Amino acid sequence: MLNRVRSAVAHLVSSGGAPPSRPKSPDLPNATSAPPAAPPQAPRSPPARAGSGGAAPARTVEARASFSRPTFLQLSPGGLRRADDHAGRAVQSPPDTGRRLPWSTGYAEVINAGKSRHNEDQACCEVVYVEGRRSVSGAPREPSRGQGLCFYYWGLFDGHAGGGAAEMASRLLHRHIREQLKDLVEILQDPLPPPLCLLSTPGAPGSSDSSQLVGPQSCWSSQKEVTHESLVVGAIENAFQLMDEQMARERRGHQVEGGCCALVVVYLLGKVYVANAGDSRAIIVRNGEIIPMSREFTPETERQRLQLLGFLKPELLGGEFTHLEFPRRVQPKELGQRMLYRDHNMTGWAYKKIELEDLRFPLVCGEGKKARVMATIGVTRGLGDHNLRVCSSTLPIKPFLSCFPEVRVYDLTQYEHCPDDVLVLGTDGLWDVTSDCEVHSSGPSSGPGGPGHTPGPWLASPQQQAGFRG
Amino acid sequence: MLNRVRSAVAHLVSSGGAPPSRPKSPDLPNATSAPPAAPPQAPRSPPARAGSGGAAPARTVEARASFSRPTFLQLSPGGLRRADDHAGRAVQSPPDTGRRLPWSTGYAEVINAGKSRHNEDQACCEVVYVEGRRSVSGAPREPSRGQGLCFYYWGLFDGHAGGGAAEMASRLLHRHIREQLKDLVEILQDPLPPPLCLLSTPGAPGSSDSSQLVGPQSCWSSQKEVTHESLVVGAIENAFQLMDEQMARERRGHQVEGGCCALVVVYLLGKVYVANAGDSRAIIVRNGEIIPMSREFTPETERQRLQLLGFLKPELLGGEFTHLEFPRRVQPKELGQRMLYRDHNMTGWAYKKIELEDLRFPLVCGEGKKARVMATIGVTRGLGDHNLRVCSSTLPIKPFLSCFPEVRVYDLTQYEHCPDDVLVLGTDGLWDVTSDCEVHSSGPSSGPGGPGHTPGPWLASPQQQAGFRG
Repeated sequence: MLNRVRSAVAHLVSSGGAPPSRPKSPDLPNATSAPPAAPPQAPRSPPARAGSGGAAPARTVEARASFSRPTFLQLSPGGLRRADDHAGRAVQSPPDTGRRLPWSTGYAEVINAGKSRHNEDQACCEVVYVEGRRSVSGAPREPSRGQGLCFYYWGLFDGHAGGGAAEMASRLLHRHIREQLKDLVEILQDPLPPPLCLLSTPGAPGSSDSSQLVGPQSCWSSQKEVTHESLVVGAIENAFQLMDEQMARERRGHQVEGGCCALVVVYLLGKVYVANAGDSRAIIVRNGEIIPMSREFTPETERQRLQLLGFLKPELLGGEFTHLEFPRRVQPKELGQRMLYRDHNMTGWAYKKIELEDLRFPLVCGEGKKARVMATIGVTRGLGDHNLRVCSSTLPIKPFLSCFPEVRVYDLTQYEHCPDDVLVLGTDGLWDVTSDCEVHSSGPSSGPGGPGHTPGPWLASPQQQAGFRG
Repeated sequence: MLNRVRSAVAHLVSSGGAPPSRPKSPDLPNATSAPPAAPPQAPRSPPARAGSGGAAPARTVEARASFSRPTFLQLSPGGLRRADDHAGRAVQSPPDTGRRLPWSTGYAEVINAGKSRHNEDQACCEVVYVEGRRSVSGAPREPSRGQGLCFYYWGLFDGHAGGGAAEMASRLLHRHIREQLKDLVEILQDPLPPPLCLLSTPGAPGSSDSSQLVGPQSCWSSQKEVTHESLVVGAIENAFQLMDEQMARERRGHQVEGGCCALVVVYLLGKVYVANAGDSRAIIVRNGEIIPMSREFTPETERQRLQLLGFLKPELLGGEFTHLEFPRRVQPKELGQRMLYRDHNMTGWAYKKIELEDLRFPLVCGEGKKARVMATIGVTRGLGDHNLRVCSSTLPIKPFLSCFPEVRVYDLTQYEHCPDDVLVLGTDGLWDVTSDCEVHSSGPSSGPGGPGHTPGPWLASPQQQAGFRG
């Protein structure tokens, strides 16, 4: 199977992929995926409780009548059926129609046989034009060349407990990023440091007309200098939050079920911003060297953040969970004995005498792929999950999940790149069975990754890890 | 001045420093510093508000009649006076009496001219014997060779707002570590993985008789394996907390004024544990390469932790502070304008419209050496500070400070060392004016650092950074 994916990607990634010219319409990007024909109801029962915490309930049959795949796959109705076929498990890649994705982006996906009814992952690849915010007078600016900004965008959304969140994120997250960048169009193109303060005329919030900028010169001597780069990082961070808030609003109409990890890349003004919320992973392969561009957020890597929250807000644990970690579930007969534990501020272990409240289920338990928050979910950052509850309980899990990504920045102008260099984004299904080095050695090598030998992206979304075993 | 310190250290650190034999008395360590003759009253006014947040009140005159220096300096009454002389600023090192500190430890300190009345820093160097906890029967075990454990210990305590906390920590922290290790004496010497659960007989809490150990075999299949190393880390972490709690109890009798950063090293069973709570720093120099063994905890490095706490527990801000960060103090006339800010979950910056509550003083402000929590304190971890209040307010700062260290482990058995290798511990006064590389090149080079060419420690506690300028 791995070879099939390799072939598909190698077929796709070929030489000479020039970046597309700026889109004509300033209102780009359009949605990459059609909205679901009949918005499905959010599943009422929580996902199966994994690990040793309780019995796994039977999975409710999803009410969805249809599902969608990324538009750039250009699937016909027949192709859509094949992409949804758990038996055949066809590897899907964009067709070789001569129209290439920006930067000769490669993409491959395969359905996750049996894990869910449909492929819950989504992907997005867009070139987005950002027009500066309207001026103070309220009249739109002339959309002339040179005023706006363009960014390239790739997104990978690993859905769980339903495909709604991933689908919504693939349609809208880049629009939220565009909205956040609108205020910064002039500032990012100005070589001077960003102004600390913008004058706002009442009734025209968000104005960033350059005449209204209060330069740092007029401020106190003791002030922080903020870089252009950190403004883009802040814009991406806030876009994630606004996307999550939109999901929260719209779930009330049962439009958005489930949640998703989000791994997105923004290329803007010479820099690559990799934003990760979840357990997907991005690497850059540069001259055979692997540069990690993300880290995974799981119950294990975020244990101390989760425990601290449970400690400070015990009401979130509902009397059902303890914020302490134990190496395994404590049993009633062990009351009064001393067991190893870790508190929120510890990285080491110590012994404590077991008391009644230690018999509660630990907030964080298990390790590796079996690690869970509240015995339910194995990732700790992402979008959606507003309806997610602990199994057999009304306790919400969302307060422990963070929608904020970690953003890493890679300055493309600082490095020399060769034709084989590539930026690889993959969901955990890929990385569970393939090391960074294996991806590198089996990745596309048939041509330059993009213009000027910059690393061309390669997106892989295999829901089922077995799909990538050779 | 730097040359004087260099000479002092080079003089001290000479070849052939064999480790001392195990101390005869199992009740070691004794106090390294005599307790203060007349316990001073805690200063009633908070330390000067730094930065631009408010007027700096005049420093109250300390009520202390005497102060002490580390016992290993063996200062006579005249030497003590010279060590306390702000004009002469003599560099203090242990005398060359033939009695060497363990592992040929070097030490140098100089008083901080004018910054405080006395040198508020302390240091400690001990060999500590740990006897296993009493057995279930309640009778003490025979103190025979082979039952106990020995660890080497070095501590550097950078005091502020009074010398009491640093002095108390230098006398007692290693005893707390010893207490925590008592339960682990048998477990750490057993090659099997630590038992997850210890049977406790009522009335004999803390028993770890090996016959009572529940081996991991008897537990669930899904259980974490805990290493011996992580038990030592946990013991050190809990010792820091217990030390801090003791300070909280005893401050009520006005025994402990101020607070201190704590940087300690424990060498036990072939591994070096470096525990840091504060802005001191430890490095190992190995074959000319520098290995960082700590990181600094300051309002800048811990901004997100502090802001999260203020966000989750707004009552801790007392209506006086905002958990948001701004690049400078917001002014009333800027109400309604948009200014750069960072929230607890952001690493980038964005603009927000200034509202009334943004006019509050930011919880975290300033940068570099001027960064402050609540406009008061420039370190975010350490011991003590239980009486510390915001200037002109009753708002306590302690909830934002953490007494927990970060512990890094260095396995001495895994590396080859040469005679010049050294472990250097220094307070911020050293590192403010001296880079890691400079310390390395100007450090002791006159002989092996310790037995078997392991890195011998070098402790430097210059309260006044100018003291180390060449």
